[in-house]
Amino acid sequence: MDSFANRWKKAEEEMRRQGIDCMLLTPSSNMKYMTGYSLRADERLLTAVFSPGHEPFFIANALYELSLAEVPYRDILYWKDSEDPFALLSREIERRGIPMNTVAIDDLTAARFVLPLLGLYPNSKFSLASGILAGLRVYKDETEIELMKTACAKADEALRRTMARGREWIGHTENELNSVLCMEMTNLGLSDAAAGVAVGKNAAEPHHSHDDTVIEDNNCLLIDFGANYKNYNTDMTRMFYFGKPSEKFLEVYRIVNEAREAGIAAAKQGKPLEAVDQATRAVIEKAGYGPYFTHRTGHGIGIDCHEGPSAAAGEKTTIETGMAFSVEPGIYLSGEFGIRIEDQVLVSENGGAPLHGFSNELQIFE
Amino acid sequence: MDSFANRWKKAEEEMRRQGIDCMLLTPSSNMKYMTGYSLRADERLLTAVFSPGHEPFFIANALYELSLAEVPYRDILYWKDSEDPFALLSREIERRGIPMNTVAIDDLTAARFVLPLLGLYPNSKFSLASGILAGLRVYKDETEIELMKTACAKADEALRRTMARGREWIGHTENELNSVLCMEMTNLGLSDAAAGVAVGKNAAEPHHSHDDTVIEDNNCLLIDFGANYKNYNTDMTRMFYFGKPSEKFLEVYRIVNEAREAGIAAAKQGKPLEAVDQATRAVIEKAGYGPYFTHRTGHGIGIDCHEGPSAAAGEKTTIETGMAFSVEPGIYLSGEFGIRIEDQVLVSENGGAPLHGFSNELQIFE
Repeated sequence: MDSFANRWKKAEEEMRRQGIDCMLLTPSSNMKYMTGYSLRADERLLTAVFSPGHEPFFIANALYELSLAEVPYRDILYWKDSEDPFALLSREIERRGIPMNTVAIDDLTAARFVLPLLGLYPNSKFSLASGILAGLRVYKDETEIELMKTACAKADEALRRTMARGREWIGHTENELNSVLCMEMTNLGLSDAAAGVAVGKNAAEPHHSHDDTVIEDNNCLLIDFGANYKNYNTDMTRMFYFGKPSEKFLEVYRIVNEAREAGIAAAKQGKPLEAVDQATRAVIEKAGYGPYFTHRTGHGIGIDCHEGPSAAAGEKTTIETGMAFSVEPGIYLSGEFGIRIEDQVLVSENGGAPLHGFSNELQIFE
Repeated sequence: MDSFANRWKKAEEEMRRQGIDCMLLTPSSNMKYMTGYSLRADERLLTAVFSPGHEPFFIANALYELSLAEVPYRDILYWKDSEDPFALLSREIERRGIPMNTVAIDDLTAARFVLPLLGLYPNSKFSLASGILAGLRVYKDETEIELMKTACAKADEALRRTMARGREWIGHTENELNSVLCMEMTNLGLSDAAAGVAVGKNAAEPHHSHDDTVIEDNNCLLIDFGANYKNYNTDMTRMFYFGKPSEKFLEVYRIVNEAREAGIAAAKQGKPLEAVDQATRAVIEKAGYGPYFTHRTGHGIGIDCHEGPSAAAGEKTTIETGMAFSVEPGIYLSGEFGIRIEDQVLVSENGGAPLHGFSNELQIFE
């Protein structure tokens, strides 16, 4: 059974279990998960209709035929600009005998579509599609894992190409390094490339984006970057150093890297996800830097770059094969420097392992 | 009175006229128009609440304080991740005595916010905020016009810088020219830069984006490009030629340029907007190329790059001071070449005039 058919089988079971008659998805991460359709939502109704015991079908404007060429459900009813898509939708739902007592709609469906739906089905009980799909999306299937691996390999290569310039970066700005790294990612076939580039003291701000700060010698460089490959995300952080790092810098680097390794080692099936956070935090706290690790250890990753569940205190979700999340401990010393090292981790029967191949050692350009 | 206060005054009048008690905007073009807030919507409720006779106020997550630093309404109630934003919203609405019998919500508000709102106000009549704001947004005020002028001037300069390379572009690809033009726009302070770059036969496809087609000598080059400056868009198309154009090419260019001039000349106050379309089409039809002008003459432009009303057949909206729309006639000869020339036109008491300063003459690199 192919991935989409398998996902629909699981969603169908979940809909039956929850007593949901019909699920209407519009362009969104949920739509990508269930059909692969990846374009953005716009003002023309495009929806995929799922109901237990029925074949899924699409309603779309005729202009979108090309963009729907690869969706797995070929039962697509097209409407023209002169026609009312909601009339077509309700006619098809009736013709197919789909009950509409309980309806799940995409969390992202815009009000301009929600209000007409409410008008059509005033007595239905509406809920959000994430109630069906969020639990399923946590566990990645083989197809998803392959796409994430490819995304991560391309990100590795983009970073290698960018940092091959080594000390040539001195005198250039964070903005310029960001532009080149994003261009390399784009050239390698990734989309929505974005990066945080932080030099020296800027690296002590965990959410620094990039600005016209000049890369100067005797400074660290933090690069937190990612992009999308066929609907799946890559997210990685690596550190570099121009000149000779201080003993303190090397010591803090060693602690953060040890915390990262401990986090990955803690990603064992059957434990709660918060164990990963506890493991990274224990290393950093023991070294006396606890107050300087100011954020959670990681976030789920897949179709959304940040998705649930998080590797954070209180997260009781059980670690299982197929879960993917970031492990990204950091120590931020305001006015001095900041160090974060981030791996994208996939859980298999053997525990957690990074999807990226780029070295975790500090790369020094002396 | 400043622009935002003036826009709220007009919206308030329209709400009273339509009998709408309350308008809830979430991040969107409508939100930009009414408050300047320009970030994207995400999973945390951020809403601006407007009710006739009441001061507008915001509900936002505490994490967004910085991004709200410049909104004109300083009455902002923050909620924390551990709190329920809808409880805060309904408490504030009740405390202020805002009636909720008729509620307009942003066309783009996501279902994850619409459903809780419906739960809070099950007896309210909901409609879309575009019913209040779409009519107002058609007529740009002085602030909006200044921002569009700046956007257009920056786009002019980006195109000048890019095309200063002249014949050096021969041997490079459409993708490469696109990258450089977008980088020039970004360097000049524009965001969301995008371009269509079409060489030779590719220019005969009106929606060609850009690909790895190599720019060769003795070919035309069509560049349709734009970006955003402080929430306002620029959109322009210009033609270039490498080598010596044929007599036919020059003749078709002259016709399209004459059509563009006729369209702008027809943009007179008091006439219906379709007159602009009739004027461009008349020139092209008279020259015998009617069947090759396959699209409408233009689209409204402002906060959205494509917004209503269109310069198209059947568009009866009266042309008035402050309207802004594109005039972009084209002739597409499949397998040969395509020519489109696009100006962004603003209507004043003196009629229509282009906002761009880049020459409309064909630039030839011999």
